Amino acid sequence: MTLKDSDWFSEPCKEGGSAFSLAIQEKLHDEQTDYQRIEIYSTTRFGNLMVIDGFVMLTSRDNFLYHEMMSHPALFSHPDPRRAVIIGGGDCGTLREVLKHPGVEHVLQVEIDERVTRLSERFFPELCASNTDPRAEFYFGDGIRWMKEAAAGSVDIIIVDSTDPIGPAEGLFTEAFYRDCHRVLGDTGVLVQQSESPLYHYDSIIQPMHDAMRAAGFADSVSLMFPQPCYPSGWWSATLAGNRDVRRFREQDAQQKPFTTRYYNAAIHQGALAQPEFFSK
Amino acid sequence: MTLKDSDWFSEPCKEGGSAFSLAIQEKLHDEQTDYQRIEIYSTTRFGNLMVIDGFVMLTSRDNFLYHEMMSHPALFSHPDPRRAVIIGGGDCGTLREVLKHPGVEHVLQVEIDERVTRLSERFFPELCASNTDPRAEFYFGDGIRWMKEAAAGSVDIIIVDSTDPIGPAEGLFTEAFYRDCHRVLGDTGVLVQQSESPLYHYDSIIQPMHDAMRAAGFADSVSLMFPQPCYPSGWWSATLAGNRDVRRFREQDAQQKPFTTRYYNAAIHQGALAQPEFFSK
Repeated sequence: MTLKDSDWFSEPCKEGGSAFSLAIQEKLHDEQTDYQRIEIYSTTRFGNLMVIDGFVMLTSRDNFLYHEMMSHPALFSHPDPRRAVIIGGGDCGTLREVLKHPGVEHVLQVEIDERVTRLSERFFPELCASNTDPRAEFYFGDGIRWMKEAAAGSVDIIIVDSTDPIGPAEGLFTEAFYRDCHRVLGDTGVLVQQSESPLYHYDSIIQPMHDAMRAAGFADSVSLMFPQPCYPSGWWSATLAGNRDVRRFREQDAQQKPFTTRYYNAAIHQGALAQPEFFSK
Repeated sequence: MTLKDSDWFSEPCKEGGSAFSLAIQEKLHDEQTDYQRIEIYSTTRFGNLMVIDGFVMLTSRDNFLYHEMMSHPALFSHPDPRRAVIIGGGDCGTLREVLKHPGVEHVLQVEIDERVTRLSERFFPELCASNTDPRAEFYFGDGIRWMKEAAAGSVDIIIVDSTDPIGPAEGLFTEAFYRDCHRVLGDTGVLVQQSESPLYHYDSIIQPMHDAMRAAGFADSVSLMFPQPCYPSGWWSATLAGNRDVRRFREQDAQQKPFTTRYYNAAIHQGALAQPEFFSK
């Protein structure tokens, strides 16, 4: 059946030859910022939906999968994470998850487009619930430049919570950027970046990302897999890099985490590390 | 953007408030059988597509995820599986995976609609590559009746590879059917059934399925999660039931499996057993 754009928001994925659609109730907001076009819809079953330049960014219903998997595996892979930086992440969902870790002393969110954060405060208030935490700091500016200028060894965790590697986020998927990340992280530091669909982007993005991270100086890297219904193929990945074995994590601490999640737990973390057979081909 | 049905095959999912679409090249076949309407399309990136009564059944590109996860976890959860029965599974993809296990001596496929198998032979020949294996037997008839009449303890593995629990497959999701399965399986027997989307169907299908399996006499049951891009939400599950701990499996045998897969391996099996936090709520 034809999916009319009066009833559905549809995102076609060229490289997938597929599309994902959400049944919409109404458009709540539409704005061209200095950087991108941001649309907000209410949907019938997914709560609110944020779209940037035609691509689904997040929905109220399923963002917990992405935000939990972008934060907790990296934090539990570090022996004692205190200082975190989020590049992108303007919706503040990742920030909220990071701040659940009691040992974290400071989180800086470096988002290029302040409007993303202002609209998230309005349309996704639950994701911004920790924005007033005294440990949270907001800087609206260029993440690539920030990383170039940051002091060596000044950060424990870098989370690259960006849009796809086309447009403004392209420079976040390069060896040059990872080299800056490697310098800014201490010896035990951990980098994590969203790395697209295991089915659609293994050859075009995931494998090149590993190559670039290793070339930039990281001794180890691994991709974790998780479901993300609103992204192309419904199957997504986050890639960890570090100077130590990033398959190892504080499993007992994860089992006894002093906060609630909806998807993540120690077994899910371990399971997300399992690599499909076709990855080794 | 509007997805026109001249360019896309779209399957809306009412309970999800979402839709999945594949870019199509042409319709290759359209037939009303005694049981259902079967359409076959060629797509731009997913190979051939089979649709039954408007629902995506399988594509050439991503069926390996479903077929491997419907077969290998069950077979490696049994100490010595020799006799298997597939209820449904007319496309023969599950049959092909089961026959990869050298210890399997006999597999009976009980599919109600012979046309599914004939069309799969024509449009998905790679899935039917093992149909001439002397260990494979085909019976075209009612799986519920077959199970009612089968001898106690005559089967090691039952795989319920059916359509959704509406229409002809409804009776396959009942305690009465599971009670027959329990009788037909030996003490070490294992049942596995596709059990829909963890995100969309946890309350409506997955949890009731566990309740019905336990009520039917099975001592244990567990749902395994895996990606399946062409099904609603892109995240799917298969539920195992048995009289022993079905979280345990022949891990070493799985690590040393004498056949190739594209997704399944021992780590993926273990990972698929991880239960999301929201499952325990």
